[in-house]
Amino acid sequence: MNADNDTIDINQSIRLYSRDSQVIEIIDQRYLPHQLIVEHLMHWEEAERAIREMHVRGAPLIGVTAAFGMYLAAIEAAAQNKGLPFFNNVAQQLKASRPTAVNLAWAVDRQLKVLNKITDPTKRIAATLELATSISTEEVENCYKIGQHGLPLLQNIAATKNGQPLNILTHCNAGWLACVRHGTATAPIYAAHQADIPIHVWVDETRPRNQGARLTAWELGQAGIPHTIIADNTGGHLMQHGLVDCCIVGSDRTTRTGDVANKIGTYLKALAAKDNEVPFYVALPSSTFDWTIRNGIREIPIEERNGDEVKYIQGLYNETVVKVLISPPDSAAVNYGFDVTPASLVTQLITERGICQANETAIHELFPKH
Amino acid sequence: MNADNDTIDINQSIRLYSRDSQVIEIIDQRYLPHQLIVEHLMHWEEAERAIREMHVRGAPLIGVTAAFGMYLAAIEAAAQNKGLPFFNNVAQQLKASRPTAVNLAWAVDRQLKVLNKITDPTKRIAATLELATSISTEEVENCYKIGQHGLPLLQNIAATKNGQPLNILTHCNAGWLACVRHGTATAPIYAAHQADIPIHVWVDETRPRNQGARLTAWELGQAGIPHTIIADNTGGHLMQHGLVDCCIVGSDRTTRTGDVANKIGTYLKALAAKDNEVPFYVALPSSTFDWTIRNGIREIPIEERNGDEVKYIQGLYNETVVKVLISPPDSAAVNYGFDVTPASLVTQLITERGICQANETAIHELFPKH
Repeated sequence: MNADNDTIDINQSIRLYSRDSQVIEIIDQRYLPHQLIVEHLMHWEEAERAIREMHVRGAPLIGVTAAFGMYLAAIEAAAQNKGLPFFNNVAQQLKASRPTAVNLAWAVDRQLKVLNKITDPTKRIAATLELATSISTEEVENCYKIGQHGLPLLQNIAATKNGQPLNILTHCNAGWLACVRHGTATAPIYAAHQADIPIHVWVDETRPRNQGARLTAWELGQAGIPHTIIADNTGGHLMQHGLVDCCIVGSDRTTRTGDVANKIGTYLKALAAKDNEVPFYVALPSSTFDWTIRNGIREIPIEERNGDEVKYIQGLYNETVVKVLISPPDSAAVNYGFDVTPASLVTQLITERGICQANETAIHELFPKH
Repeated sequence: MNADNDTIDINQSIRLYSRDSQVIEIIDQRYLPHQLIVEHLMHWEEAERAIREMHVRGAPLIGVTAAFGMYLAAIEAAAQNKGLPFFNNVAQQLKASRPTAVNLAWAVDRQLKVLNKITDPTKRIAATLELATSISTEEVENCYKIGQHGLPLLQNIAATKNGQPLNILTHCNAGWLACVRHGTATAPIYAAHQADIPIHVWVDETRPRNQGARLTAWELGQAGIPHTIIADNTGGHLMQHGLVDCCIVGSDRTTRTGDVANKIGTYLKALAAKDNEVPFYVALPSSTFDWTIRNGIREIPIEERNGDEVKYIQGLYNETVVKVLISPPDSAAVNYGFDVTPASLVTQLITERGICQANETAIHELFPKH
């Protein structure tokens, strides 16, 4: 965490506002790319709301935000003389704020374990801050390593392109806005760009919340990486016509067998990739593994959000961010946040420990303790 | 054609304004569902523009509109003493107004054939009106028959549902707004609804132009048919969880081997249907067959529209229809209008002559003259 600078660093999505601060600084991502709004979280309830209302999103980032939420709770507990029942309640609420990504529970449970071992309120503050910072640093390092492990995959494909740009399709935003720095799916892309490999990214707009058109396009634009926004419907056609060299997406929860829950629509792209023999890579830090489950489709809870996110779309009109109604007002809408891509459709997983096939044996070889 | 009534019939998308009229009445579908705007076409250029700018859309309807465009051209030719070179030029421009649907060329060429046989300007007017009306009537009758042939398919599935609603997924709008009456994909749905089969329709919003969320949802709402709008990304998840009993879509061009060009994204739903053993039906009048081609992916021209249709979305804001920007202003976007679903992913075709497998032999049995 870069805690010395009091202006937002636009390659980092969350940080302490200053070194001894009790303030967490995030980007309220709901208004990007039209407005860059920095928000200060000073109470754990604000962290919970920032996750629930998606000021922050992306599996690694909501884990880190929740970890800092436990730190803010420790500050409150010290001031108001609250103990473990309070922390358990905060933990429960933070974990319930979004259901699908497993990082949230993973980060909060790590904090609870620490809190259970300490009784002194001031030491609890110090310990939760240390762990939150450490989780954040781990995510940064893991994303960096994902980039380094993914880079050779892209180099290999680029070597077959005779200098033509490598066309990578990505869905949703698994960039630094979804993590802390580097991103997961974007880490190999940024690494390739830095290695002067000519690349071009097809950016799925990612309805209903348009994280691709809003966030990934903005990130890539900031980094000077050529990209083209497409409707989510378009990827299959591009693959049929040889216009996609590989897909890279992130993961919100990964089973020990390699099934991947990611933004709704990921499964459809994986099917098209399989049908057209396009490599389909999933980039993930091991914090997204749920080691307790084997069958993603049956066992991963899929968040259902408000149908109004489908019926109304947010955008810029007359220099103001507004929401417009696209459908008849009386029509119903449903809004599932994620779907599960079976391991059989995944070419390889790109993790901080290296690349592996999406099956239990190969995953176990990389992560033998689980 | 109901030509006696001077208010728009909201089950019909195009008609003569009155029996002896030289005015064609259409719905300018760009403003639905927010505004029902009726437009009068009085010159062939207005018909061409209505097709090109998508005031009207849907393969059958643009064929009928082009046929009436040739009638309007015959009126102009008689008044200005123009002959076959003029008609050839009009025909060329009408055919070029949208590239993918084959009905356009089919209808215009039928008119040209008639015009080539007649020299008297007044008779040309009468003959083109007669043929345009006849093409329109054929489309109405064919759509009705598609409904009758498709109904048993839905009845069979409904019989397995123990009275629970039959869940049908459709993509884009292949309803009466895309045809003249009844629709193609919607014809069996309307027939089932009239037969008191409990149905529920999953309506893909169909980015970028949202014909599902705007038009199909509006049509189904008008007809009192339960429906739910979903992001285009959602269908695969629904199929994985047994929430879709069948898919029905339309076609803009069908090869003699059964490959189907339809709205971009259709292919992704067909892949998901195959992967989950959900029947995938394509409903089409024979006017969408292109008997000259065998390989849809290689041979069907796919329209590329302005990328701004991806970056800007139209909707209702403060009771006004406006366009909002959803992406960074500088990001590129591409906008392919259609994709091709290979015949191998199509369970059955539903035509005005009956149901058949999507292969050359079966299609030839139903349409032996081609």
